[in-house]
Amino acid sequence: MNQIPTDVCCLADYERHAQTILSEPTWAYLSGYSMDGFTHQRNRTKLDEVLVQQRILTESLGQGDCRQTLFGTELSMPLLIAPLAYQKLASSMGELGSVQAAAAQEVGFCLSTLASSTIEQVADVAPQSKRWFQLYCQPSLDDTLTLIRRAESSGYQAIVVTADAPINGVRNAEQRAGFELPDGVRAVNLDGLPQAAQGDSVFACWMGQAPDWQTLAWLREQTSLPILLKGVMHPADAKCAVELGIDGLIVSNHGGRVLDSQPATIEVLPAIRAAVGATLPVLLDSGIRRGSDIFKAIALGADAVLLGRPVFYAQAVAGPLGVAHCLRILRDELEATMALCGCATVQDINQDCLYTPF
Amino acid sequence: MNQIPTDVCCLADYERHAQTILSEPTWAYLSGYSMDGFTHQRNRTKLDEVLVQQRILTESLGQGDCRQTLFGTELSMPLLIAPLAYQKLASSMGELGSVQAAAAQEVGFCLSTLASSTIEQVADVAPQSKRWFQLYCQPSLDDTLTLIRRAESSGYQAIVVTADAPINGVRNAEQRAGFELPDGVRAVNLDGLPQAAQGDSVFACWMGQAPDWQTLAWLREQTSLPILLKGVMHPADAKCAVELGIDGLIVSNHGGRVLDSQPATIEVLPAIRAAVGATLPVLLDSGIRRGSDIFKAIALGADAVLLGRPVFYAQAVAGPLGVAHCLRILRDELEATMALCGCATVQDINQDCLYTPF
Amino acid sequence: MNQIPTDVCCLADYERHAQTILSEPTWAYLSGYSMDGFTHQRNRTKLDEVLVQQRILTESLGQGDCRQTLFGTELSMPLLIAPLAYQKLASSMGELGSVQAAAAQEVGFCLSTLASSTIEQVADVAPQSKRWFQLYCQPSLDDTLTLIRRAESSGYQAIVVTADAPINGVRNAEQRAGFELPDGVRAVNLDGLPQAAQGDSVFACWMGQAPDWQTLAWLREQTSLPILLKGVMHPADAKCAVELGIDGLIVSNHGGRVLDSQPATIEVLPAIRAAVGATLPVLLDSGIRRGSDIFKAIALGADAVLLGRPVFYAQAVAGPLGVAHCLRILRDELEATMALCGCATVQDINQDCLYTPF
Amino acid sequence: MNQIPTDVCCLADYERHAQTILSEPTWAYLSGYSMDGFTHQRNRTKLDEVLVQQRILTESLGQGDCRQTLFGTELSMPLLIAPLAYQKLASSMGELGSVQAAAAQEVGFCLSTLASSTIEQVADVAPQSKRWFQLYCQPSLDDTLTLIRRAESSGYQAIVVTADAPINGVRNAEQRAGFELPDGVRAVNLDGLPQAAQGDSVFACWMGQAPDWQTLAWLREQTSLPILLKGVMHPADAKCAVELGIDGLIVSNHGGRVLDSQPATIEVLPAIRAAVGATLPVLLDSGIRRGSDIFKAIALGADAVLLGRPVFYAQAVAGPLGVAHCLRILRDELEATMALCGCATVQDINQDCLYTPF
Ligand SMILES: Cc1cc2nc3c(=O)[nH]c(=O)nc-3n(C[C@H](O)[C@H](O)[C@H](O)COP(=O)(O)O)c2cc1C
Ligand SMILES: Cc1cc2nc3c(=O)[nH]c(=O)nc-3n(C[C@H](O)[C@H](O)[C@H](O)COP(=O)(O)O)c2cc1C
Ligand SMILES: Cc1cc2nc3c(=O)[nH]c(=O)nc-3n(C[C@H](O)[C@H](O)[C@H](O)COP(=O)(O)O)c2cc1C
Ligand SMILES: Cc1cc2nc3c(=O)[nH]c(=O)nc-3n(C[C@H](O)[C@H](O)[C@H](O)COP(=O)(O)O)c2cc1C
Repeated sequence: MNQIPTDVCCLADYERHAQTILSEPTWAYLSGYSMDGFTHQRNRTKLDEVLVQQRILTESLGQGDCRQTLFGTELSMPLLIAPLAYQKLASSMGELGSVQAAAAQEVGFCLSTLASSTIEQVADVAPQSKRWFQLYCQPSLDDTLTLIRRAESSGYQAIVVTADAPINGVRNAEQRAGFELPDGVRAVNLDGLPQAAQGDSVFACWMGQAPDWQTLAWLREQTSLPILLKGVMHPADAKCAVELGIDGLIVSNHGGRVLDSQPATIEVLPAIRAAVGATLPVLLDSGIRRGSDIFKAIALGADAVLLGRPVFYAQAVAGPLGVAHCLRILRDELEATMALCGCATVQDINQDCLYTPF
Repeated sequence: MNQIPTDVCCLADYERHAQTILSEPTWAYLSGYSMDGFTHQRNRTKLDEVLVQQRILTESLGQGDCRQTLFGTELSMPLLIAPLAYQKLASSMGELGSVQAAAAQEVGFCLSTLASSTIEQVADVAPQSKRWFQLYCQPSLDDTLTLIRRAESSGYQAIVVTADAPINGVRNAEQRAGFELPDGVRAVNLDGLPQAAQGDSVFACWMGQAPDWQTLAWLREQTSLPILLKGVMHPADAKCAVELGIDGLIVSNHGGRVLDSQPATIEVLPAIRAAVGATLPVLLDSGIRRGSDIFKAIALGADAVLLGRPVFYAQAVAGPLGVAHCLRILRDELEATMALCGCATVQDINQDCLYTPF
Repeated sequence: MNQIPTDVCCLADYERHAQTILSEPTWAYLSGYSMDGFTHQRNRTKLDEVLVQQRILTESLGQGDCRQTLFGTELSMPLLIAPLAYQKLASSMGELGSVQAAAAQEVGFCLSTLASSTIEQVADVAPQSKRWFQLYCQPSLDDTLTLIRRAESSGYQAIVVTADAPINGVRNAEQRAGFELPDGVRAVNLDGLPQAAQGDSVFACWMGQAPDWQTLAWLREQTSLPILLKGVMHPADAKCAVELGIDGLIVSNHGGRVLDSQPATIEVLPAIRAAVGATLPVLLDSGIRRGSDIFKAIALGADAVLLGRPVFYAQAVAGPLGVAHCLRILRDELEATMALCGCATVQDINQDCLYTPF
Repeated sequence: MNQIPTDVCCLADYERHAQTILSEPTWAYLSGYSMDGFTHQRNRTKLDEVLVQQRILTESLGQGDCRQTLFGTELSMPLLIAPLAYQKLASSMGELGSVQAAAAQEVGFCLSTLASSTIEQVADVAPQSKRWFQLYCQPSLDDTLTLIRRAESSGYQAIVVTADAPINGVRNAEQRAGFELPDGVRAVNLDGLPQAAQGDSVFACWMGQAPDWQTLAWLREQTSLPILLKGVMHPADAKCAVELGIDGLIVSNHGGRVLDSQPATIEVLPAIRAAVGATLPVLLDSGIRRGSDIFKAIALGADAVLLGRPVFYAQAVAGPLGVAHCLRILRDELEATMALCGCATVQDINQDCLYTPF
């Protein structure tokens, strides 16, 4: 660890190495997906099916770059590290390592409610980081509010409300492997807050305390930070969010971890962009593994993407250095794709940069 | 047996275990399919291709459930155990075990004409069960009538007439394995009734005594129980059945065991629903393995589904307990799918809950 | 040999066994295909993609059968053994065995110009056989005529002119294996007739002596037997043949052995049937392996099919008995498919018996 | 080496052998592709999906041939050896071997700027060769001009400007294998010319000195040789080139080595042919492995094709002799395909020679 194996040159290489390093139950948890993994796999196949259009001899690409500005903050490329629970599962530094990698590479970082480091520790260790806070609504509104206030006072610049996981996904690999959180890894930001309800059915047990549109309306009143809604997969839900004054959307199926048999995020993206108009920030995650995937997402209407599992994999293999390396690889791949498709800036990327049968 | 292996958490796990437990010929018989298994496989791939549509922040899902009422009887979910011959092949309790599991989980149970337990034994061992009787018409109408009368007096609540298997399927794996019924497993309800005809060709040997529409019309006169026709794959046949006063249909290709190269049941379901109108009970089987499959079938027009081979597999692995566990898994998966798609009840599930490119 | 292994119950079983029995070069020759085998494989996948439509409770199937009449001769089913060169490669009896199997099962038999038994021997050993003669035009018209006269006097009932193989296919597996005809196996009917031309290119070497439409017109004048043209894959060629007075067509791509990257025969069949009208006998081969394949071909416009490689495989495994067994399997499978699709006779099979999305 | 293994009878056989002969890093370099190889693979699958249409009994094919004239020079078939860097990696003779093979087989030869033999050596060793020079624009226009002048004085008959590789592709296999040029293999024609720029990003480092449309316009002024533009994948770029007076196009994605996720060359060919009209010479490469591929490319609008990696493989296995053998195999396969599709000359090949569902 803290050394990058010489044969690692793309994100898939980190994945391959991580599988040999992590214990089987941890691997099952981190890499896992809901039920049969149809959505997990489809996230990739649908990205793979998007084709890019090469252009040649384009003038003045020498000055190009892939910087992108979101809510007034400029990033070196249109990417954030996704909110990921329990990052200490992958390496002892956990979130404290990945936020530093993000800061070094000038990309965004989104801290999970279920982080294994506190809101404050993360801010302290990387004060220059461009950081957002991902919120899981708590059974009590007061507790929910406390989390928001802590994020505000620690300099987080946006709140990401995750709405697609009111219940645990049916993650059979994880169940079979008997995964449990090891000692010393827990959701430290929730220490002392009451959690799981009781009940005999999925409905009774979980859905009784799940947030709904009213909760979101209430949340909108509580903070002046931008709020993004994460887990949007239907244009009608996107419109609802806009009407409630939400500032941005994240098209996500949680990396295929919650509801299987859903479409891929990339295939619903255009309809969601169309539903909310040209200006609302729309991000996308689930399956991003190459710089060319970022290019495709932007061409189809996203402003930026989030990176999930590979962050764990890189952490497990080479700690924060690995995460920074991952980010750099993605940037080089994105820039290469842009240059070869004749795009000098992220703003130049649009649907015409994709190949569709002439 | 009678203990659930710790690594079993979905129906595919039972299948995997069962294959290691059962003798090769028995496995070949239970898991087998007609010819090259195209239809058997297609039952699954076509279900897999149906995509569900996630919805978020839906209000009042806390009170949801997946109960369903069929012919006046309420079930805990829209599912019955399919009629399955010779269940003692899988475990010594056979039908007596699975009917108890069905009763415990409050789902329906359909006893096969070819059961290895008698009509009366099944009723006695689970008097509270919601039970139906599946009828294979016998060469003699009198014998056929005797079976119906026995079902009536033992409290069976519907008759399921199976029409898609007038001949044995071409089941090569079973033939190659040389499967034969072991001592002590036989169609006890047919004891003493004359069976197979003679003849040199498929037509002469089998089709001479196969039931036809006239037989069905005659049957309709003989009982006041609801009659369902099992094995409907063509809208025109569905309409014929309705005209004869049949009370419900089961869209089925017998799990791909009889005629290969047929379409999957899920792909013909919408046309059959359209042919018979909105109110006639239409059930579906063949390939149901996940709670999300039940969700898809209902979204495309079914009122309930039947579960076939997995019942054998669960019996083989963990007896009646295994069957009950299977049923519970399916219910949890169905409820999770419903909750994530914003459906509080089975009545909320419709075509809009599926993803079709916007 | 001359005993059917107990685990053989479909044509694929014969293929599997044959591969273990035959020498590698012989296997490479018999099972081989042109170039990359795209067409060879597509013959199967396109047949597999055709779906049949089950019908239930059809009246009066008890009297059904699958007999078919071609050029005034009734066969027990719509099938002939295809013209296959050098059948002694597979077993010592060669053509003398397969013609007897065909006669026993009352199907047609087509003798190849390149047979390893003489025209007369075949007629003698199975005088009751319904036999056709397949003609490869010889460099000299006189030699060609001699072959026709021999067939006429030995009671062959039709001439099949093969037009799709003026050159050898690029059969790499066969080349790599270094296949050569063993001693004692040769085209005995061509003894003494001059063969291969010289030249440095495919064009100069082979095409200079290939038959053309004029040759066919000339042939039509030479005999009163029905003439069928084998290897028709384009509707325009089909029409040409009809204009020249040809009596029947065989839609064939030579089992994918000559020109790779062609479509499958089953996919061009409907257009060829449409081009020639409803009454001209149109046969099909290439990839027939199941009774259900015969059903599909007839539903899409064929009057009968020819069976190629499986004849070799069955011969290699169990001699004439194996061939007869193969034929019987196909008949049983065809009858089962017919009965389950509600067809009492071959005339009942039409496009409505196939499933197309409603 | 210098002997053809007896089991080699198609280009894939050379590939298979070469992999066992070459060192792993060299293999990774020669066979490699960008990122995940989607485009590399798609080049093949899209060629495979093109279907040819067999025709029978065509008149007067005996005089056929596959000769083709390009810019006034007649070739024995419509094929050139593609510009390939560092051919000495595969065998000690490198370009000096392959140009002799090309001359012997009367096909074209295109020398790469990055050749491991000099422009003059190649001309000297095969003065009769039909040779073109492939130009990578140099940072300095003077250096670029020097290369052109050397090609002119050594009898090269056309200049091929490669525009699709301003940056190195993301070739992970090569990176993982740690490929480096061995001693004695280098771009000898660039000896003394300044190369790589400095900079921290793809844009700054590479794109600053990449050629653009202005460079091409300038080039057009510098020589009276025909200029072809290599790497055209968009009809608009094709039109630009025509407007600048370019004499021919090469539809190429560099064998999938530069930008992954692009379409295959064969699928963009028709649109590019349509954009430039019927007469401008349009060539195609990337994935050509069979004579039937040449046939397909011509049917879809190409005048000729270029052959890439197989040249390396044949060199590695059997030196110049192997390359010549490769070329001869392709010609025989092309002629066979032409004859079976009823084409006597390359001019007879058009879209009607392909199968599209009737
Ligand atoms: C192990 C793991 C934990 C996650 N935890 C959270 C979380 O706490 N909150 C959240 O909104 N999303 C969570 N996600 C989802 C990610 O934010 C993101 O949507 C997903 O990983 C993107 O897909 P990818 O992994 O294919 O890149 C988690 C994902 C994984 C793999
Ligand atoms: C071993 C076995 C025996 C069966 N016996 C009967 C039967 O006696 N009567 C009947 O109507 N269906 C019978 N079926 C068909 C089932 O009722 C049901 O249609 C089918 O199994 C559903 O497909 P599935 O196994 O993929 O769930 C049998 C199926 C199997 C696998
Ligand atoms: C080994 C072999 C030899 C053949 N010889 C001939 C022949 O002499 N004349 C002919 O018209 N067709 C010949 N054929 C083609 C067959 O008649 C038939 O078209 C083809 O085998 C059908 O495809 P199938 O093998 O997939 O059933 C031959 C086929 C094979 C496999
Ligand atoms: C090892 C290697 C080196 C190459 N070098 C060059 C080059 O120097 N200049 C160039 O224009 N193309 C170069 N190419 C691309 C080829 O000219 C050609 O476009 C490509 O190989 C065609 O695809 P194929 O290999 O699938 O036939 C190279 C390709 C390979 C495989």
